[in-house]
Amino acid sequence: MNAAPSDVPLFRRVAIYGVGLLGGSIGAALRARRPEVEVWGVGRNAARLQAAVDRGQLHKWTLDPQEAAMACDLLVFCTPVDQIVPGVALISEACQPGTLITDVGSTKAILCDELYELAGERVEFVGSHPIAGSDKQGAEHGRADLFRDRVCVVTPRPNNTAAGVDRVGSFWQSLGMRVATMSPAEHDETLAVTSHLPHLAAAAVAQLLEPRLAAFAASGFRDTTRIALGDPALWTAIFLTNRGPVLESLAALMDVLQHYRRAIDSGDERQLQRLLTEAQYHRQKLV
Amino acid sequence: MNAAPSDVPLFRRVAIYGVGLLGGSIGAALRARRPEVEVWGVGRNAARLQAAVDRGQLHKWTLDPQEAAMACDLLVFCTPVDQIVPGVALISEACQPGTLITDVGSTKAILCDELYELAGERVEFVGSHPIAGSDKQGAEHGRADLFRDRVCVVTPRPNNTAAGVDRVGSFWQSLGMRVATMSPAEHDETLAVTSHLPHLAAAAVAQLLEPRLAAFAASGFRDTTRIALGDPALWTAIFLTNRGPVLESLAALMDVLQHYRRAIDSGDERQLQRLLTEAQYHRQKLV
Repeated sequence: MNAAPSDVPLFRRVAIYGVGLLGGSIGAALRARRPEVEVWGVGRNAARLQAAVDRGQLHKWTLDPQEAAMACDLLVFCTPVDQIVPGVALISEACQPGTLITDVGSTKAILCDELYELAGERVEFVGSHPIAGSDKQGAEHGRADLFRDRVCVVTPRPNNTAAGVDRVGSFWQSLGMRVATMSPAEHDETLAVTSHLPHLAAAAVAQLLEPRLAAFAASGFRDTTRIALGDPALWTAIFLTNRGPVLESLAALMDVLQHYRRAIDSGDERQLQRLLTEAQYHRQKLV
Repeated sequence: MNAAPSDVPLFRRVAIYGVGLLGGSIGAALRARRPEVEVWGVGRNAARLQAAVDRGQLHKWTLDPQEAAMACDLLVFCTPVDQIVPGVALISEACQPGTLITDVGSTKAILCDELYELAGERVEFVGSHPIAGSDKQGAEHGRADLFRDRVCVVTPRPNNTAAGVDRVGSFWQSLGMRVATMSPAEHDETLAVTSHLPHLAAAAVAQLLEPRLAAFAASGFRDTTRIALGDPALWTAIFLTNRGPVLESLAALMDVLQHYRRAIDSGDERQLQRLLTEAQYHRQKLV
């Protein structure tokens, strides 16, 4: 990971497609840290976009995706992961030569493959995944410091230019992030374990909480299942665009649960304590 | 649940056996809310017990379990769940007639059965489980408000007297808790889902976090696996003293995970969204 921010002006105008929690936070962070950059917002709801301007997250907004594509030299797609490809398809012809496009999607392999098909001579797409978020949704919860000291994974394909990858990385660094670079496939395998699997486990545990039991769930249950509050449509898209790695990590989880089952069933105190100590050890690395 | 606290003086002297997070908090809450009650601490480490006195959690301490049993009319066992029965066995002969004994153990059926065998004419044991805690350990983290507005499950057996059950319930109410009464078996089935199962899921997910992946784990992973930080010996004892219900809830969890596996494998968007929406709905009841 490379943490040194660049002071070279990277972009003149940045367009944020989809101004929700992440898009609003990108705007706020840019305005705070790169006052020389003009920040545009693109969306479908004029009142919400104007509210983001009023909060100081954007300089201006448009409902016309092509207008922003013509005017800006970096386009950041913050729409749901299954709307990124159609969104890029709509604007790629309108871009000036040399325009860079990136995104904040949670899965990268399918997306980067599909965008490779779309990419022409004029624009370059470099995938990104800033690992930051909140259980809140909407630009009104956006924060200029949402990305500070968090990790952004930049996922170049072999056809990307070194300059394009560097500039996208520098963009995230300019928002305060540490940047890690890996292939789209490696990203998806990593996030299957660190993000998608915990969501499945949380949702499965939450589902077993019959209403009559809710009064007896304390903070442990709440913490463990908090992410099950996330948007079902968003997570459905994440699981279905990362099927292979998610199925692999799910199989590994069920394997571990089988170990627990056998140890409890046979009353194997030593094995149970060994498993729990291993889990505690791994978790302590995150404290 | 019954939330009305009683103003009748319930006990003259209360002995806390095992002054850790829960024992220290019980002492602090009693001192704050029932200044007329004398609070004794019983343990094996004089310096730590004196520190609890210095923090105002106890009036006095002793290293002699029988001395406290002779002097006090309520004994609250806050030792690890597998040390409660030997602890009660050691002191039951020393008690004055009419002494009440309760505990804070996380599993109840085996414990209440074994203590029934021990109970004589002179003392009555009524099991309790105050559902409150912290990921911190030790009396130094004890708080007078740890129990406020939380639920305490009181688990009478058929042989318990109505008066004994009422007095133990009133004791927890006097610390600010709401009291629910159920059989030891029903308690164990309930907590298997609301407490023991999330711990297994959290530990299993935590175990899959190889060190090289830790940098890519964000708040979702942290929340979901936080309880895996808990003491492995404590949780081993919990799982092994609640084997049947834990195995049943674990089987239910693996069933749900199989549903997810099939839906992801076959790309069944509708089923996946249905499952996630159901989980979100159950979790929202806790917000």
